[in-house]
Amino acid sequence: MSTLTLPNELRDLIAAGPLVHLTTINPDGGPQVSVVWAGLDGDDLVTAHLGRIRKLRNLERDPRAVLSFLAPGTPGELEHPYVTLRARGTVVESDRAWDLLNDWMKLYVGPGQEFPAPRTSGYLVRYEVDRIGGVGPWAE
Amino acid sequence: MSTLTLPNELRDLIAAGPLVHLTTINPDGGPQVSVVWAGLDGDDLVTAHLGRIRKLRNLERDPRAVLSFLAPGTPGELEHPYVTLRARGTVVESDRAWDLLNDWMKLYVGPGQEFPAPRTSGYLVRYEVDRIGGVGPWAE
Repeated sequence: MSTLTLPNELRDLIAAGPLVHLTTINPDGGPQVSVVWAGLDGDDLVTAHLGRIRKLRNLERDPRAVLSFLAPGTPGELEHPYVTLRARGTVVESDRAWDLLNDWMKLYVGPGQEFPAPRTSGYLVRYEVDRIGGVGPWAE
Repeated sequence: MSTLTLPNELRDLIAAGPLVHLTTINPDGGPQVSVVWAGLDGDDLVTAHLGRIRKLRNLERDPRAVLSFLAPGTPGELEHPYVTLRARGTVVESDRAWDLLNDWMKLYVGPGQEFPAPRTSGYLVRYEVDRIGGVGPWAE
């Protein structure tokens, strides 16, 4: 299982601020899904969090994750394009989590918007992607 | 774990044809995600498939699934509304799979569109939902 470099086409999709369905594994082995913001931090795909919420505790116990999101589609196409990234997530404490959320706020909510929570330290998850799937030219 | 009746607000969202991220568990315990069409068959939430693809084999081994999809949002809102349905999926052979896909084709692709594969028997998955989550008035 080797880490893939994301192709530019996917980097562009991620940089545009897709709403990402983040799937992790609960302690009982069942799936846990929530929708999160994601972005690039240099070459890395990351999510940022201010609390040590359940999906972070899940990743600390079992790093297997899938990040999935829709890509822009064309009306009338049979298959809507989408991306699945199979990855291993590493949780690190970071005082940059709020700054990333504040940056992404401009993409996900609107230009000039400030992240409404007080600035505090938090957590980043870095994802090592080992399989790119879905429907589109990026799918293996 | 008891089966929930979907509130009308969620039934309406599903009947409008959302692109659903369907998460199942692979044999190795890791998550598997793909984006599918879904709909209502009477009171039941169902997906329809013409082949016995991996997610169906996963559900036959471990019925735990999450179906997640975005709801319509309002520009400038901090949290985009979305739905997560934790469910148990039961796979049944059915000669109605193609008919449902053909019905849903009008929603997902366009009015008057016919499903392009030959009519054949297939599979339905019926989902018993035991937890409704996400962001929105439907979240527990």
